[in-house]
Amino acid sequence: METQRSNGSPPETHEAIMDATCRALCEYGYANLTMQRISDELDKSKSLLHYHYDSKEELLVSFLEYHLDEFATRLSLDEYDSAADALSFTVDALFPDPDDSNDFEVTMLEMGMQAPYNDAFREQLQENNARLKDLFTRIFEDGIERGEFEAIDPERAAEHVLILLDGVRGRSVVLGSDEPNEVGRDAIREFIQAITVGDEDQ
Amino acid sequence: METQRSNGSPPETHEAIMDATCRALCEYGYANLTMQRISDELDKSKSLLHYHYDSKEELLVSFLEYHLDEFATRLSLDEYDSAADALSFTVDALFPDPDDSNDFEVTMLEMGMQAPYNDAFREQLQENNARLKDLFTRIFEDGIERGEFEAIDPERAAEHVLILLDGVRGRSVVLGSDEPNEVGRDAIREFIQAITVGDEDQ
Repeated sequence: METQRSNGSPPETHEAIMDATCRALCEYGYANLTMQRISDELDKSKSLLHYHYDSKEELLVSFLEYHLDEFATRLSLDEYDSAADALSFTVDALFPDPDDSNDFEVTMLEMGMQAPYNDAFREQLQENNARLKDLFTRIFEDGIERGEFEAIDPERAAEHVLILLDGVRGRSVVLGSDEPNEVGRDAIREFIQAITVGDEDQ
Repeated sequence: METQRSNGSPPETHEAIMDATCRALCEYGYANLTMQRISDELDKSKSLLHYHYDSKEELLVSFLEYHLDEFATRLSLDEYDSAADALSFTVDALFPDPDDSNDFEVTMLEMGMQAPYNDAFREQLQENNARLKDLFTRIFEDGIERGEFEAIDPERAAEHVLILLDGVRGRSVVLGSDEPNEVGRDAIREFIQAITVGDEDQ
């Protein structure tokens, strides 16, 4: 993952472009994002951006992929003593932080809403989802193998957690409220408790 | 609810305008919706639409309210023998039908994504959500009172169900898949089982 990207930019250039995209997205929102605004955020010549990306769409697909890679790198699950810890850590990493501005959450949802109309976005978002789902599935499989969790279906458990996470994210943005956040955390906690061996009656 | 609307249109005119809006939204999507396209769907003179609504935004806020009223009218909960039946019926009514085109779901989510930028949309969507949440809360309260459900917090239970429903809806649209639908139904069923008296161990 540290090698050159398919667009041919070296890692540090790629990272600079991705950071500029993130700032421009948070500042202007998806609808008002332009290549010019990303260029303005980038402390490099404007031609650099156009050299690497033919279109805003191509850049944003790359941004979705970058965001996924960055997230996956942050989660190195080997460090954890129990599947339950790995699960809590992963859920926390995906939970919207109520102290942060929700500009980034709004932007990600807006890109999600392009999926029905935009094949490249939909494919990348499906890929992002598949990797997240695979991550949760492996944690559930590991927990079952270690005897921590009941013999549930790990893939369905992963989908259940992702439904809760996406539900919380969507409701927080649309309703402008922290309540989904609190209730969602409890719901995920209760779900984990319910499948934890010896915890059935809690 | 059968009296004149705040915009002054008689019920049958209001209904005709709302139906035309629904068709235009499903056909062209939120981004390409115009007053002209709604007028074209309406089997009345074009001036009628402009007489009742100054802007597309005003019309769409009215549409969100109409959709909520229509849904609330369909659910007359007095008919049910048990809170569990009322709950299943309400969940079913809100679940996206996998046999239907998801154009309408996409459109509703797109309007939801306007909420961070548009006060009138956000207020109407908060109102829609408050009424749905109130509906679920009353069902949970009723079930607790009848001794069907454990003494859970009815409002938090309502929020939990709405998080699952919104998570399913969002994931189905973004990923273009029926899987969230299936897993989400099971998740809601398991949640209801877990709070049903005498069903704790299922």
